[in-house]
Amino acid sequence: MNLQRYLHQRQHRIERALDRYLPKTRSPDGLEQAMRYGVFAGGKRLRPILALATCECLGSPTTPVVPFACAIEFIHAYSLIHDDLPAMDDDVLRRGKPTTHVKFGEATAILAGDALLTEAFRIMGEAAVRAGALRPVAVQALVEIAQAAGIHGMVGGQAADMAAEGTTIDLPRLEFIHVRKTGALIRAAVRTGALLGNARADQLRRLTRYADRFGLAFQVTDDILDAEAPTDVTGKTVGRDRARRKAAYPALLGLSASKDRARDLVAAALRELQPFGPAAEPLRALARFVVSRCGDT
Amino acid sequence: MNLQRYLHQRQHRIERALDRYLPKTRSPDGLEQAMRYGVFAGGKRLRPILALATCECLGSPTTPVVPFACAIEFIHAYSLIHDDLPAMDDDVLRRGKPTTHVKFGEATAILAGDALLTEAFRIMGEAAVRAGALRPVAVQALVEIAQAAGIHGMVGGQAADMAAEGTTIDLPRLEFIHVRKTGALIRAAVRTGALLGNARADQLRRLTRYADRFGLAFQVTDDILDAEAPTDVTGKTVGRDRARRKAAYPALLGLSASKDRARDLVAAALRELQPFGPAAEPLRALARFVVSRCGDT
Repeated sequence: MNLQRYLHQRQHRIERALDRYLPKTRSPDGLEQAMRYGVFAGGKRLRPILALATCECLGSPTTPVVPFACAIEFIHAYSLIHDDLPAMDDDVLRRGKPTTHVKFGEATAILAGDALLTEAFRIMGEAAVRAGALRPVAVQALVEIAQAAGIHGMVGGQAADMAAEGTTIDLPRLEFIHVRKTGALIRAAVRTGALLGNARADQLRRLTRYADRFGLAFQVTDDILDAEAPTDVTGKTVGRDRARRKAAYPALLGLSASKDRARDLVAAALRELQPFGPAAEPLRALARFVVSRCGDT
Repeated sequence: MNLQRYLHQRQHRIERALDRYLPKTRSPDGLEQAMRYGVFAGGKRLRPILALATCECLGSPTTPVVPFACAIEFIHAYSLIHDDLPAMDDDVLRRGKPTTHVKFGEATAILAGDALLTEAFRIMGEAAVRAGALRPVAVQALVEIAQAAGIHGMVGGQAADMAAEGTTIDLPRLEFIHVRKTGALIRAAVRTGALLGNARADQLRRLTRYADRFGLAFQVTDDILDAEAPTDVTGKTVGRDRARRKAAYPALLGLSASKDRARDLVAAALRELQPFGPAAEPLRALARFVVSRCGDT
């Protein structure tokens, strides 16, 4: 399959939906503009595409997945806005553009993040109201996304990551942080696609394992990219994580072993997809894409 | 009825539930402790009690309301934590105690707010999963709470309030801000109690009007208290809002006319409760309590 074309089409579908879900008004306080800036700062839409691709691999219609996929992207966007704040990671550049608080001020950036998180749940709630026979799995997906975004997921991971800064951590602690900070929302994206795609229990288990391996591979390659790529690729200052001694695989395992680990994780993710046949081709291509970013296809 | 006893009993019930919904763990990063600190900073639990009292006035069991009432209190607590941040209102004292960011640092305060907002929706989603026949109204309540907390409600009101700081605003603009910043969540609390109490359409309309008048009366008296009370009553620096020329009724209407306005609003709120008979006594007492705070019973 042509992954670039697939990604382009799905990105386009998600971005049209994100645009519909964002407020159209422009208020003098800049809140709506800051929300839009944070969401349209140029992401790959990996999480929403994973949700769609998972539903597709089950041969189910994807329309009910779209609001949940957009809600997950809103949550991802809010987390980046808040993580970049001066009190947190203090980043002035993301994907080569000024971060939201640099562009709109700190107060508006905090409120834009709060608003995106809140709107995410409004979108999912409204979708659940309209879901008809799918309502029980829609409410279940909302709960899983909330769990993934909260103290036992993304926010807890970010807090643990900040507490680990400047300290020496071992591999189990690093994976504890990564599983929460990025893994949980990736898992929730895949499970949302599976739940709304009416997956059987055994299919849900396999897809969840795929998601967990995918999420960890994604984080390992992100750390590798951050350690070795120039700014014009990551859009961040080179080696910024390493310079601040943030939790990172290359520092713990070395570069070569980190790449091996990413490849092994992707191979394990692919094994879980075997029973799904050709319909899982997008999920396979997405997993391969993750390691290909480091030049190790 | 004995309002003090009623408030005390309901507060106790809500605080036990809040305690159950908060994480029991204490992590090295302080996230859970900061969440607990923000929630147990000594509030009156007005919003959750309004939700319970509304359900009671319909003669319906209140147990299904409790998780939603706690979620609303989590949202209220998160909004105070974020509003107090240096980039926002920059308050170091709330209810006579150091604000969350003073006690735990700015990064942890931002994350604790994010976590409380996220957990609020997890709690409501999990309650909706268990709601059985009440599931449609439970999902509806979740949606209304999200709407009240988001860009067209609380967050939008805070953004407009910050944009108005240092400018001259008129009464319609002041009410625009108040309706969103505090009114929306009070309305959502009452409507949640009504929805989960199986209110008929006409009852829901009356209770919504009660809530809107209550919410505005609450804000007018809050502005009066802030303008004239010493710190040991409000727990904030005296006249802080006025000193920063923040949106406030006394500055626009004068103190005496502001008190008249609060009394008129409460009288209008009470008229909406007439058809509910003695079962609405707690809602009546709560409305009278709002103006009594200013010494005008």
